[in-house]
Amino acid sequence: MASHWEEFYSTHLPPTDFEDNRKLLKEFCERHNKAGQRVVLITSGGTTVPLEHNTVRFVDNFSAGTRGAASAEYFLEHGYAVIFLHRLKSLEPFTRHFTGQKFMDMLELHERGPSTTITVKPDCVDIVAPILARYKAAQEAGRILYVTFTTVSDYFWLLRASCECLAQFETKALLYLAAAVSDFYIPSSELPTHKIQSGAGAPTISLQLVPKLLAPLVSLWVPHAYVVSFKLETDESILITKARDSMNKYKHKLVIGNILQTRRNRVVFVTPENNYEIVLTREQLLSGMEIEDTIVSNIIESHTEFIAQHKY
Amino acid sequence: MASHWEEFYSTHLPPTDFEDNRKLLKEFCERHNKAGQRVVLITSGGTTVPLEHNTVRFVDNFSAGTRGAASAEYFLEHGYAVIFLHRLKSLEPFTRHFTGQKFMDMLELHERGPSTTITVKPDCVDIVAPILARYKAAQEAGRILYVTFTTVSDYFWLLRASCECLAQFETKALLYLAAAVSDFYIPSSELPTHKIQSGAGAPTISLQLVPKLLAPLVSLWVPHAYVVSFKLETDESILITKARDSMNKYKHKLVIGNILQTRRNRVVFVTPENNYEIVLTREQLLSGMEIEDTIVSNIIESHTEFIAQHKY
Repeated sequence: MASHWEEFYSTHLPPTDFEDNRKLLKEFCERHNKAGQRVVLITSGGTTVPLEHNTVRFVDNFSAGTRGAASAEYFLEHGYAVIFLHRLKSLEPFTRHFTGQKFMDMLELHERGPSTTITVKPDCVDIVAPILARYKAAQEAGRILYVTFTTVSDYFWLLRASCECLAQFETKALLYLAAAVSDFYIPSSELPTHKIQSGAGAPTISLQLVPKLLAPLVSLWVPHAYVVSFKLETDESILITKARDSMNKYKHKLVIGNILQTRRNRVVFVTPENNYEIVLTREQLLSGMEIEDTIVSNIIESHTEFIAQHKY
Repeated sequence: MASHWEEFYSTHLPPTDFEDNRKLLKEFCERHNKAGQRVVLITSGGTTVPLEHNTVRFVDNFSAGTRGAASAEYFLEHGYAVIFLHRLKSLEPFTRHFTGQKFMDMLELHERGPSTTITVKPDCVDIVAPILARYKAAQEAGRILYVTFTTVSDYFWLLRASCECLAQFETKALLYLAAAVSDFYIPSSELPTHKIQSGAGAPTISLQLVPKLLAPLVSLWVPHAYVVSFKLETDESILITKARDSMNKYKHKLVIGNILQTRRNRVVFVTPENNYEIVLTREQLLSGMEIEDTIVSNIIESHTEFIAQHKY
């Protein structure tokens, strides 16, 4: 019998732009692997579960994408090549610092006769310049690849394709699985074609469990990589147990547990050996420090050791 | 017995920033009503239905907010004051033309000794300048008020509060209800506190019908206003019937019907008297014309007649 995850791929079509993305992933990975670079795959944002084929309604997972977008900046700073596999319109590295209105408000229009120029207001330059410089450096060096998903099925296809390209990096590949992936879905074969009509009364939605890709990912797709997963809960009392269960089940390198309400200033690292917390103080938060800075530094230290241990 | 919509308000708390928004709405409406202005309330984007109190998962309605955001620009152009009641992070007027990355790519960093300046690239100025000028004009004249919602319950509270402030405009108020409001929800009292656990197997979600606010809105809250609602379907064969049913039921001024797949180039206007289509040709679409330009012009013409007819 085919495993649950194999069945998922055989019953759900790849997204329409799948082949284009696969080519981009292949080119990106080959280039950086040849250069001896380390690479990180960051997944970020929530996946959707459509309730109709012509989708008007869907179930979604709460995630603005802050964790993934911030972390991408810190990984770039440490010299990693970054594949940023994220939910369409979730936060992205660098641009996350500005909303559309903030951008517009920073601009100044100068109309002098026939020639018009637009500049960033002098008092905003200090904030924008360093972010812009880092954004452009990453773009120009081709060190970041943006790939987007919307549905949980898109995510499944793109995650596997990414892993196929990452395998060549062996221990130099880091997987940082921060996306909020749906645990439940409605199989394609059970979806109605058209928008559910309210005239027929309120519907009952029967969901099925999504296969856990962490199993084939760790054991088959990238068996030599350093894999980090995340566990988000709202109930403090079950967090560590759930994170430890996940570690025991999939036998990867690290589970980062966090609670919805405190995720910006506290996470717990669950490793095969022990647990430890990373906490930002109120002062650190107020000074503009981000917990992702510390999370990424810690992981990179462990990744470096891991690479050294596996050299032969 | 309390009606369904009254019961909804009595069992769902207002959003946390409700009083702040109510003050802003009150100030905005009083100022523009004194000036003899016409006003339009545009609702835009989809509402969410949380599946947990500490919300990790929710049901959402597909809507980027393009219709509402584009229409807001055209209403401003025609001199209306605009209340833009929209889903947090859905598209907004003016900024909708640029994503974060597009903005970054348009900027140029000039470091000359100690002084750094940032300018918009000369070849982008022609595109940015007119949009920026219109954005700034609307901001500086205080002619647009941005108010955001996320859940269907937020939307309910803010819609009623908006109507309470709009009533004073009588026939000069136009309501342009383009938001994709959920038809279904889970009552607050039936929500679990914490994230639903996948270990317990896949859940079945039982939804209830959301009360239709169009009924009290038309008959009680803004009985003199010009009210336009939208009907989105995916099945062409039921569109006109559904739109006509809505018109007969709520007895407002206009239902705009549209099909998910063709909504950018075709809509149907269903009025108390007749139906007619607005269609953009392929050439018009390619030239960058937007159907919202024609939709808004048509509505404003009818609104002008409506105001004239009701003068006494």
